[in-house]
Amino acid sequence: MPLWKIYHPVDAYTPQDKQALAERITNLYPFLPKFYVGIVFQDVPKDSFYIGAKPVDNFVRIWVDHIAKKLDTDSREGWVRMCDKALAPFVKERGYDWEFHIDETPFTLWSIQGMSPPLETSEQYKRWKLENKPTPDAPSAG
Amino acid sequence: MPLWKIYHPVDAYTPQDKQALAERITNLYPFLPKFYVGIVFQDVPKDSFYIGAKPVDNFVRIWVDHIAKKLDTDSREGWVRMCDKALAPFVKERGYDWEFHIDETPFTLWSIQGMSPPLETSEQYKRWKLENKPTPDAPSAG
Amino acid sequence: MPLWKIYHPVDAYTPQDKQALAERITNLYPFLPKFYVGIVFQDVPKDSFYIGAKPVDNFVRIWVDHIAKKLDTDSREGWVRMCDKALAPFVKERGYDWEFHIDETPFTLWSIQGMSPPLETSEQYKRWKLENKPTPDAPSAG
Repeated sequence: MPLWKIYHPVDAYTPQDKQALAERITNLYPFLPKFYVGIVFQDVPKDSFYIGAKPVDNFVRIWVDHIAKKLDTDSREGWVRMCDKALAPFVKERGYDWEFHIDETPFTLWSIQGMSPPLETSEQYKRWKLENKPTPDAPSAG
Repeated sequence: MPLWKIYHPVDAYTPQDKQALAERITNLYPFLPKFYVGIVFQDVPKDSFYIGAKPVDNFVRIWVDHIAKKLDTDSREGWVRMCDKALAPFVKERGYDWEFHIDETPFTLWSIQGMSPPLETSEQYKRWKLENKPTPDAPSAG
Repeated sequence: MPLWKIYHPVDAYTPQDKQALAERITNLYPFLPKFYVGIVFQDVPKDSFYIGAKPVDNFVRIWVDHIAKKLDTDSREGWVRMCDKALAPFVKERGYDWEFHIDETPFTLWSIQGMSPPLETSEQYKRWKLENKPTPDAPSAG
């Protein structure tokens, strides 16, 4: 469900860093099949990256779309803080400035591997989560 | 109206492939002026592309914004399947895994060539569609 | 609050151009702390950039997320025209075609430097704007 897009300075992260950060982000969603979590890193040269009209080479700007689930009003602030905590070793603790924002997009306009993702309450969903892969419902053996 | 952003593995597609896929995507919107359909392809190296916290080089992740038109509730599933069909030769039939999701954004915060796109029922819209280019309404000759 | 993503032809803009355009865009938001305005430029090769299914090397496609503030219905068209005016020297006056659209995303799913941005009416907000940097509220000396 979530797609994370991470704009970062050139050479800010090694492949090992990106792998580790991808794991921390994916672990924010223990209630989802792991393969729902997509992450794209993109390095941005200083002369193409502006915050407050100043070129930056120490900024990490993250943009997220949530698709599967709308967060309850009450859990939003807590969620945002959890994200900050997950990110901290790769932003705050490395001296980068950072910002992120999340949008929520329609469940009904979403497709994985040619299928509309199943409702959370379905057997198909449980199977997708357990097997960590999207499979069609088998025809009943009847 | 639609902006498609296609994240794909490095060298997944030739320019000819991208041209052909762009045509298939554009043809999903026969009711719109062709020039409303924008598509950006971006290759993502394996070490910058994660699905379920695993680096991937066989995944195509597509993100779409629809601006001009909100889809009816009833036509959404059918629409999503049409998209899958349009994409199939360049994802499924090439052995790539894929996912896409669509957001819908406000008609009133949109500009083409310095103009707010016309309502579908207007003469201007018909002209834009027919001529496949955005032109201002001429002052009346009256 | 706003994140601007500017897809442009390869070599369309020098670093000086990008700096100047970033200033024009940032000046669209005099009511916000300057550091709220983030801008990412990305050049797109002709064979990865399609408008109406045609590869383009003269098109600037801009995508914006607004987070801090929803625009009033009445001020939307005026706002869009102001954006066009700010962009004009770098699109229209250089012979580029262009399109932009703006989405509005939830205030409550947003974080800067580990903090939920303050309400506009707060002292913290005034300080952020005045000092052009995000700082936590100091514990009261009380």
